[in-house]
Amino acid sequence: MLFSWEQLKSIAKPSPTKIVLLVLDGLGGLPRAEGVGTELETAQTPHLDELARKAICGLMEPIAPGVTPGSGSSHLALFGYDPVTYMVGRGAIEALGIGAELREGDVAARGNFCTVDGQGVVTDRRAGRISSEKSALLCQKLNQLSAGDGQILVTPVKEHRFVAIFRGVGLSDQIRDSDPQQIGLPPLPIRSLSPQGEKAARLANEFIARAKTILADSHPANMILLRGFSQCPNLPRFEEIYPLKSAAIAPYTMYQGLARLLGMEVLVTGTTLGMELDTLEKHYSDYDFFYIHFKDTDVAGEDGRFDDKVQAIEQVDAMIPRLLALQPDVVIVTGDHSTPAVLKGHSWHPVPFLLFSPWCRPDTVTEFSERACNRGGLGRFPATQVMTLALAHAKKLSKFGA
Amino acid sequence: MLFSWEQLKSIAKPSPTKIVLLVLDGLGGLPRAEGVGTELETAQTPHLDELARKAICGLMEPIAPGVTPGSGSSHLALFGYDPVTYMVGRGAIEALGIGAELREGDVAARGNFCTVDGQGVVTDRRAGRISSEKSALLCQKLNQLSAGDGQILVTPVKEHRFVAIFRGVGLSDQIRDSDPQQIGLPPLPIRSLSPQGEKAARLANEFIARAKTILADSHPANMILLRGFSQCPNLPRFEEIYPLKSAAIAPYTMYQGLARLLGMEVLVTGTTLGMELDTLEKHYSDYDFFYIHFKDTDVAGEDGRFDDKVQAIEQVDAMIPRLLALQPDVVIVTGDHSTPAVLKGHSWHPVPFLLFSPWCRPDTVTEFSERACNRGGLGRFPATQVMTLALAHAKKLSKFGA
Repeated sequence: MLFSWEQLKSIAKPSPTKIVLLVLDGLGGLPRAEGVGTELETAQTPHLDELARKAICGLMEPIAPGVTPGSGSSHLALFGYDPVTYMVGRGAIEALGIGAELREGDVAARGNFCTVDGQGVVTDRRAGRISSEKSALLCQKLNQLSAGDGQILVTPVKEHRFVAIFRGVGLSDQIRDSDPQQIGLPPLPIRSLSPQGEKAARLANEFIARAKTILADSHPANMILLRGFSQCPNLPRFEEIYPLKSAAIAPYTMYQGLARLLGMEVLVTGTTLGMELDTLEKHYSDYDFFYIHFKDTDVAGEDGRFDDKVQAIEQVDAMIPRLLALQPDVVIVTGDHSTPAVLKGHSWHPVPFLLFSPWCRPDTVTEFSERACNRGGLGRFPATQVMTLALAHAKKLSKFGA
Repeated sequence: MLFSWEQLKSIAKPSPTKIVLLVLDGLGGLPRAEGVGTELETAQTPHLDELARKAICGLMEPIAPGVTPGSGSSHLALFGYDPVTYMVGRGAIEALGIGAELREGDVAARGNFCTVDGQGVVTDRRAGRISSEKSALLCQKLNQLSAGDGQILVTPVKEHRFVAIFRGVGLSDQIRDSDPQQIGLPPLPIRSLSPQGEKAARLANEFIARAKTILADSHPANMILLRGFSQCPNLPRFEEIYPLKSAAIAPYTMYQGLARLLGMEVLVTGTTLGMELDTLEKHYSDYDFFYIHFKDTDVAGEDGRFDDKVQAIEQVDAMIPRLLALQPDVVIVTGDHSTPAVLKGHSWHPVPFLLFSPWCRPDTVTEFSERACNRGGLGRFPATQVMTLALAHAKKLSKFGA
């Protein structure tokens, strides 16, 4: 990055202004047929359009052109963390997703119950997708085993999936998966990828051996597979980087967990955007940076439900007056990445972005849409610039250089 | 670059999709008078305009704003190689241009026959531009000389120009030119620029001394000048970087040589775009990445023939339906650099670019031209991003980060 956190800190100054960052998960979309609009372009969004007229708009690039981000990476980028330097691995993201406590040094992995035959060969990587109830019972049997001076915490996720957290001194996530990723092969012994990984590999292999014994009579769930070992990354805290007292309003545990990792205060909230705004109103005087996460846009996109994504965007639009009534000094509306319904998943397309403040220089954009944002004053720009822009417009930065 | 090849490899995945990169050499242009269009804006291009409507467009920056690229550098950038890190020197480019074999460790130089007087002072750097026939005979006399354990291969180019390739163990291109670049001075003794260059400098000086003896009676071509010593750069192979089986369709030897350097398969083809498309059709099922090079636009631009460049663009336009009939998953039409006819040479201006795929997010561009591309969804962007964008739209990349 041209402008580093050190440089940013050198010009940071406190001020009583407030910033609201509203993240509509997976906001960016694609047309579902030639010549028509994206989800956002199809939605009736009079309030967002009105805001776009007064705001400065652009298309935000979460990681790099052409690169589809995971949710962890795209959020880190939005919060100003170089997403290539600061990675949160799959196991850690899954642990955050179920609200499991992840301590410094812990190694988390995604787990599957699976089926093996008499020779120990995997015949079903998902154990016939056993019910969540059955899985919860089996997880209880595996939970809190200890091996050497390490301990293993097992938490069910859904159906055959669980999270395993390895806790102990001197563990590292430099170890390989046991999941062979296909049937007809036995689970792989876990190997360390570097000398630091040896202890964790021993612990994981011992856990797997004990699980095999414990599960012997639980066909089809008579074995486990582990993958995506990862540690809680050592992230600089949000408030060490920025002159902000920050709070997260996010109904989903993964985003709460991510916010907690950065040291944000996670506020208790409800499951709808209305409830999230209740929370914002209640705590408005206590913080000067609010991250609000709205998940419905992404869920509809992942499921390929174009119309539901349109409707979710319209629900957000209806709430904009309530948000503006608080008169935040800076309001940002954007997504963490694109989730076009036609692709049923995250995509690499840049994300519509608007920043409103009394001090923004308006551009010629008159509606909030992908195509309009493309002509916006911010052009196509990297997500890691968002926080600096927010701080500037909130007058929390002084002059750089003499 | 934020996103490295290593990171790209970590998310690459094979897929049966196909990418066609059509490079119209020197495509970008300038108006020939105030208030009129560039070559591309003047050309009637109904098919490219139709494609631009469905595509995502932009203006591509080959090296950096304001920097005019050589053909080697601009092609390397387009293929995703940082053109500042990966240089192909003048001698090597000239060798590739005549189809000379350039082996690892070889040092290539551009050579001129020149005239020296009795005191050895250069009186004509081009030996009166002797005929190509005369030059070929003289090159024969100089070819395959050996000195120490090194060998020198001399191949005529055109008129007074030739290529000299020095072959032997432990050679380096860290040596200076012998060409004094002006008359009235003697040729410079070749000096090494670093200890590694000493052997090559000795070899080159011995070659020059022997050439002087051999050419003593060949006035006006009684001496040689060498410049632009360069080795075949150690370029990572295309297919090591990208999950692609790649082929080049290029009538000119230089572009064939460059493609071969990267490890692309060079397909036998003819001299017209029609013949190049014959080749594409014939081999369409054998590869998943095709680089097609079209030279006429650049040749007309270099010669200052504005109307001929317009016509060359119109020829390409007429071929677009044939290209699209193959239904490639990603079609890119762009240039390697600009060659405005009014400048009679390469220029620094960014290059019109379009990428069409079923998964591109269309922008508001309705014609293929410099001015329209400037408002395109890709904005002004570096050439090194092209390959990542192509792979993304061909669904050959999975998610980055969890």
